Amino acid sequence: MLPDTIQKFIQIFSRLPSIGPRQATRLAFRLIGWGPARIAELGRVMSGLANVKICKQCFFVHTNENTICPICADTHRAQDIFMIVEKETDLISIERTGKYAGKYLILGELTKSGALDENHARRIEVFKNILTSLPDKKAREIIIGLNPSTYGDLYTYTLTKELTPYTKKITRLGRGIPTGGEIEFADEDTLGHSLERRV
Amino acid sequence: MLPDTIQKFIQIFSRLPSIGPRQATRLAFRLIGWGPARIAELGRVMSGLANVKICKQCFFVHTNENTICPICADTHRAQDIFMIVEKETDLISIERTGKYAGKYLILGELTKSGALDENHARRIEVFKNILTSLPDKKAREIIIGLNPSTYGDLYTYTLTKELTPYTKKITRLGRGIPTGGEIEFADEDTLGHSLERRV
Repeated sequence: MLPDTIQKFIQIFSRLPSIGPRQATRLAFRLIGWGPARIAELGRVMSGLANVKICKQCFFVHTNENTICPICADTHRAQDIFMIVEKETDLISIERTGKYAGKYLILGELTKSGALDENHARRIEVFKNILTSLPDKKAREIIIGLNPSTYGDLYTYTLTKELTPYTKKITRLGRGIPTGGEIEFADEDTLGHSLERRV
Repeated sequence: MLPDTIQKFIQIFSRLPSIGPRQATRLAFRLIGWGPARIAELGRVMSGLANVKICKQCFFVHTNENTICPICADTHRAQDIFMIVEKETDLISIERTGKYAGKYLILGELTKSGALDENHARRIEVFKNILTSLPDKKAREIIIGLNPSTYGDLYTYTLTKELTPYTKKITRLGRGIPTGGEIEFADEDTLGHSLERRV
């Protein structure tokens, strides 16, 4: 019934997070309605993402010449203080507070299971290598900045156990953020307080 | 904070139906995580949509050489019976019943207002021209196949008034479909019954 090009589109776009076959179908028809010029523009914008690199240290995105992002390359930031966040948008929210001047580790998407997957484990290994390469062989402080939810707490527990040998101090963001909420949605003031009152 | 390429992506993809800035941001990071090869594949699949044409008669999608779709070009179908549907996915659902052998008009997305917009009006003009070009200068039957919802009923009322001079008979799909439901979700049997018992 549908041309192959549309079926292929639906098949591939259905695999994207929170887009099912039904939304992908609607997307296809909406795009076709937009006409070839705008479809071409979307295609170009999408291909542009292929040039984005992932930082070898903190795993944030960047388009620098070298392998690390501007945050990791910034010598004015504390080199021995680290915040572990789940995702890129959490890092952006923390940066917007203007109250944090250390480095980051983006752990990658967490699951409700609370168990570290292969990707998390790989990033934690990279992180441990960074910590043991510090002048003191340890971090001055690691702030665990995961969502204050049941599974966030599980991950926080696991990470604390895992990283205690690698740091002088481990803290968590203060519970200014309402329990069950998400970092990405917190306003800058609340996030700022949770940084100041970390426990 | 974010590279320009990502910001551009978020800006453009936020305009797609039911994708807000937040989901577009997540999409961007997910795609980047997939790596350049799969991003390129997505870009190709998206560009493929630029080759899809829209039928000059019924407004369904096709990739034929000429300007009309395989359904409109099919001489085995009744040339003077028409069903008006809201969207492409409704047409697909009706075709799957195998119980309809007339032609279509895809009206385009309806709004809760119940008022015909410029796009609807343009398609109705095209439709009227098709009807007055028939040997009898009129359709034998027009079936209004809009969702059996409050605004669907409003549109059905408007279309009936608008099209009565152009057809010998106007019917609606039988209310085998539960009121408030959507055609796209109805199973083939229910849809088949609603075709057989149209009123």
